[in-house]
Amino acid sequence: MNEENNNQADMDKKNQKHKKAMQKQKEKVDAKIESADEERGVLLVLTGNGKGKSSSGFGMVLRALGYDHKVGVVQFIKGVQLSGEEIFLKEKASLLPNFDDEDFYQMGTGFTWNTQDRTADIEAAEKTWAVAEKMLQDDRYNLVLLDELTYMIAYKYLDEERVLKALRDRPREMSVVVTGRGGGSALQELADTVSEIKHAYKAGVKARKGVDF
Amino acid sequence: MNEENNNQADMDKKNQKHKKAMQKQKEKVDAKIESADEERGVLLVLTGNGKGKSSSGFGMVLRALGYDHKVGVVQFIKGVQLSGEEIFLKEKASLLPNFDDEDFYQMGTGFTWNTQDRTADIEAAEKTWAVAEKMLQDDRYNLVLLDELTYMIAYKYLDEERVLKALRDRPREMSVVVTGRGGGSALQELADTVSEIKHAYKAGVKARKGVDF
Repeated sequence: MNEENNNQADMDKKNQKHKKAMQKQKEKVDAKIESADEERGVLLVLTGNGKGKSSSGFGMVLRALGYDHKVGVVQFIKGVQLSGEEIFLKEKASLLPNFDDEDFYQMGTGFTWNTQDRTADIEAAEKTWAVAEKMLQDDRYNLVLLDELTYMIAYKYLDEERVLKALRDRPREMSVVVTGRGGGSALQELADTVSEIKHAYKAGVKARKGVDF
Repeated sequence: MNEENNNQADMDKKNQKHKKAMQKQKEKVDAKIESADEERGVLLVLTGNGKGKSSSGFGMVLRALGYDHKVGVVQFIKGVQLSGEEIFLKEKASLLPNFDDEDFYQMGTGFTWNTQDRTADIEAAEKTWAVAEKMLQDDRYNLVLLDELTYMIAYKYLDEERVLKALRDRPREMSVVVTGRGGGSALQELADTVSEIKHAYKAGVKARKGVDF
């Protein structure tokens, strides 16, 4: 009987402690939300050597499509292999109101590591950038994903200042997500949020459909 | 004229150098793909203090839905606010073949930081885990996303060994994505890939619909 009472007291104490910790956590979160009250679009850069940069961008696309937001997606490096996001945006997203063919564009030359032709790559990058630039001026878009854009800056396929200017001059309400390794300090400086994804690769498992591509 | 020749020579040299670098890069990537040839599902843990862990998980969901893969989603912490992924999976995903009501489950108590009631939280966690556990035994699923599962382990709402066992014993072809901070070293040990998302928060911009939730 005594032991039972002790157990009950222990449990009460634990619950009390937990309640206090959670209260503190909630106050912290609330304060953070309170202090961040500027209503405008954000520029997110998802970078680092880890996996999940593009996935994270496409997760935001899914989220925005949930709200029937107008979403634009431009992919600057297209693998030779078909990707799940490609099929989704081409075939499934047409089921959604508000997502049209013009909202999705891919650089058409295949993986840049496969082409090994700098002049052709630059041409393709310029053409693709023209599509992105147009989206960045179009205030119907709530969210624009510029997938793997950083490589175009890193390889000097695109003029950095031109890219930064378009991002800077975008409509105030538009959020933009840029993915890819590197991209330079000026882009990170301009960003509201930089997420660096570090990757701890472990087992020798083959890249998998629906997970990796 | 001489200058023009020089420019051309410069350009050729640059292109040659670029071609060589890209060739090397391609060989590296090819070798990596070659060496990773085991065909089985993977366990991915998306962790770290950065933003984009859940987004990355939902990006993989989008990708998998592109392939008409069978996807299961269990969210262990549900905000009081409606989220874009919630609306998407409830309203939009029903447009997709292969995604049914039973494929999406949310812990029903609201944000755990809001409840401050440990006993009720544990009960809700157990109920939610039962749904996840069932999915992890069902070989129809290609991908299962266990969003914010790590907190259930960290808060000791769920027995760690029971969680690890279910993950370990899942069908060989099933991939699982676990998101959330922490989660313990045993989970990371079991994972094929751990991505740590580090966040550099900068400006005081309000959390945005379709980007943050």
